Amino acid sequence: MTYDCSFLHDCSLDADQISFGDSHRTERSGDWGTPEHEYVRPDAVIWPESTADVATALRSADEQGVPVTPYAAGTSLEGNATPSRGGISLDMTRMVDVLDVRPDDLQIDVEPGVFGTTVDETVAKHGLFFPPLPSSGDISTIGGMIANDASGMKTVRYGEVSDWVLELEAVLADGSVITAGSKAVKTSSGYNLKDLIVGSEGTLAVVTRATLELAGLPEQVRGGRAIFETLSDAVEAVSDAVRSGVDVAKIELVDGTSAAMANAYTGSSLPDAPMVFVEFHANHGIEAEIDFCRSVFEAHDITRFEIAAGDEMDDLWQARRELAFAVQAFDTDLSPLHSGDVTVPISRYPEMVRLVHRLGDEHDLLIPCFGHAGDGNLHYSVLVNESDDDQVERARRVQTEIVENAIAVGGTCTGEHGIGRGKREYLEREHGEQSVEAMRRIKRALDPNDTLNPGKLFPETMGGGRIRN
Amino acid sequence: MTYDCSFLHDCSLDADQISFGDSHRTERSGDWGTPEHEYVRPDAVIWPESTADVATALRSADEQGVPVTPYAAGTSLEGNATPSRGGISLDMTRMVDVLDVRPDDLQIDVEPGVFGTTVDETVAKHGLFFPPLPSSGDISTIGGMIANDASGMKTVRYGEVSDWVLELEAVLADGSVITAGSKAVKTSSGYNLKDLIVGSEGTLAVVTRATLELAGLPEQVRGGRAIFETLSDAVEAVSDAVRSGVDVAKIELVDGTSAAMANAYTGSSLPDAPMVFVEFHANHGIEAEIDFCRSVFEAHDITRFEIAAGDEMDDLWQARRELAFAVQAFDTDLSPLHSGDVTVPISRYPEMVRLVHRLGDEHDLLIPCFGHAGDGNLHYSVLVNESDDDQVERARRVQTEIVENAIAVGGTCTGEHGIGRGKREYLEREHGEQSVEAMRRIKRALDPNDTLNPGKLFPETMGGGRIRN
Repeated sequence: MTYDCSFLHDCSLDADQISFGDSHRTERSGDWGTPEHEYVRPDAVIWPESTADVATALRSADEQGVPVTPYAAGTSLEGNATPSRGGISLDMTRMVDVLDVRPDDLQIDVEPGVFGTTVDETVAKHGLFFPPLPSSGDISTIGGMIANDASGMKTVRYGEVSDWVLELEAVLADGSVITAGSKAVKTSSGYNLKDLIVGSEGTLAVVTRATLELAGLPEQVRGGRAIFETLSDAVEAVSDAVRSGVDVAKIELVDGTSAAMANAYTGSSLPDAPMVFVEFHANHGIEAEIDFCRSVFEAHDITRFEIAAGDEMDDLWQARRELAFAVQAFDTDLSPLHSGDVTVPISRYPEMVRLVHRLGDEHDLLIPCFGHAGDGNLHYSVLVNESDDDQVERARRVQTEIVENAIAVGGTCTGEHGIGRGKREYLEREHGEQSVEAMRRIKRALDPNDTLNPGKLFPETMGGGRIRN
Repeated sequence: MTYDCSFLHDCSLDADQISFGDSHRTERSGDWGTPEHEYVRPDAVIWPESTADVATALRSADEQGVPVTPYAAGTSLEGNATPSRGGISLDMTRMVDVLDVRPDDLQIDVEPGVFGTTVDETVAKHGLFFPPLPSSGDISTIGGMIANDASGMKTVRYGEVSDWVLELEAVLADGSVITAGSKAVKTSSGYNLKDLIVGSEGTLAVVTRATLELAGLPEQVRGGRAIFETLSDAVEAVSDAVRSGVDVAKIELVDGTSAAMANAYTGSSLPDAPMVFVEFHANHGIEAEIDFCRSVFEAHDITRFEIAAGDEMDDLWQARRELAFAVQAFDTDLSPLHSGDVTVPISRYPEMVRLVHRLGDEHDLLIPCFGHAGDGNLHYSVLVNESDDDQVERARRVQTEIVENAIAVGGTCTGEHGIGRGKREYLEREHGEQSVEAMRRIKRALDPNDTLNPGKLFPETMGGGRIRN
């Protein structure tokens, strides 16, 4: 499907804010998770430089019936930021200003194209940081994090992106500009449009400014890793730690498969055994907290428990830090069919991890498991040789079974990556038909022409139809 | 305005679930904040006992064009739970079951009529508690807290009700039953209907079940009070403490006026001076945290800093605890025109408190200030003799000026009580016309016939018109 986007020349955008060029269009046709054969090119790319630019472009596109898909760093994993059927790619990477820093209020105002780590770098001199930053914070933007309600390793202690966004300015499909939320840390004033927009994947509004809340950098930071005899020991230890109220700032699982990949990649002499990586933040009493954690872990079969500060801590964390690269490098014939991020209530986490391992064994598939264990969030990559159709088919079945099990135990099909195109088939299974219909009603109310990022999130698009399931 | 509610007899409700009686209707015509002359009686009261009852009643009322206003304990302060123009009062106080407790997941499932303290009592044996409970938790219900996104003294450390609601079951105006949110502690799956319903004051949906998250009871609890020479010292100390990252679980202001009332009421020999009440929660290192707080406070002109545990701590807190009664008892000719709950960014909190005092002096009004200082949340009562028209008029002007100032510095007109009927005139001033229009679009999408709690929240109701401004 292609759209005539020549009206853009009449949108009071400068010539260098509009491109119909092949390379610009191709660059914005896929994200980190979209298989190349599913790339859909936008018909035009525009780079707004202000809220007014966004409003003008959206109003015109809405009138013309042309889809608009917001785009920035392109690091999404479910096709969230790329077109499903042409139209305009709205590239937010020129809206990169830090607008205001108010250290006395623990607040910063930024434009959506600002990279996550830019926020941390900007506020570090005030002794502050942005707690929910995902591990990809150096290559992904605040706008993208808001669109997916992202989270990171420190979410187990500090919460998700939505917990740290106070106020948004956003443009609706018809070009109207709204503010949502408040710079006060709590409000009961009217509907919570802020948290409706956060996580809506650019289907309801385009965020043009965000006020983020910040936290004080902890005085004491320690961290390290524990190595376990068995996977069950490792995951039960995590579940125990959360239930016991151990105050961890990070608690990350790396299963034996992942550890083997990381060890091979880094040339480490560690055993290919399940590991749990931890970090502690405190202003006082950190040693007592670490001892408490050690005692909880030691109820399970543990080989080592090592904790350090500074560079030594970084050394201990190496396997977890390098894991994404290690998985990629492990076998160049294998690539992830899917990078899952199911999340379940913490008591169901151990059985969930064991299920994924059992499915991997049963179907002869390599499925490294890792991730934000303390949130009950399981990251896994179902690795396949794409030319092996039978393996791909088995991997698809396994993936569906994993997600369905997560939903069956009260969990969610996505803890942080969003629905995008890739997980649309699960939305109704998770929330039920009536709930998804309520979501659709809201979509129709705010974007009646299905202009904003169509073909995403909902199992069947309002204007389009199934793209991929 | 009255409505024919005889159709209720055909709604598969039992006879004892329906009343047209005078006393039942009168009891549900005003809340704690509605002046008696503004009471509007419902035409009927019904008591659903299940989700199916709620769905049946709503579907029928929606078809008949009869307004439905959810009601429970009646402790709202802005007319949130009482009719604006007759119809049905949907009394939720028979849906009082604790449905499930899952201590290993730190979760509890309850019906909306459950009292707040019932939750704490139920989970205490597992070493857990529900952190955002408001001070009125023993007389107000979980459903009401969800409707207003309530908060309490511990919100400064733990967050608001919305932060501790994981999943809701709710019924829309047309009787469809949805679930919103997830039992996983984080999700990026679809629109965040959960936080849209929380705080929507019964205008979008009626909550029939809530899964609440719980926290572990702290091992160490200490608390007490600091007495300051001047109000400026007290409020600057609070602002400093928050900015410095002192880890307080409660930090409450009581100004000189309020202290005088509390001292008179309790027969205390304390000075009528500004006080700051604090409580600390920790598993380790609480003494270090208390010392840190003391050092921050001592940069201001402080007379006493007293901290204790257990009963002694309760004694130190007496003035704050008894304050609501003390204000009531102070002068029986005076009653609060309005109990404000404006909330501002913490750096603007000191000037906000000083402004309220200056306005009280200028207009010769008694305005005790107190409340959840650490959130930048200022509670104040503008006290008036209701028969003194000139004083009432001055009080109205002062109240408007306070709220407008809060909004002007980036704050909100209500931190926790909601808009209800009383604060509708401020909604657009705070959020802007386009944002309120977006809220209206959502209201129309989910409740096209304006069945649920009409005449609330929006400056002009969709079906009705202004009731009070």
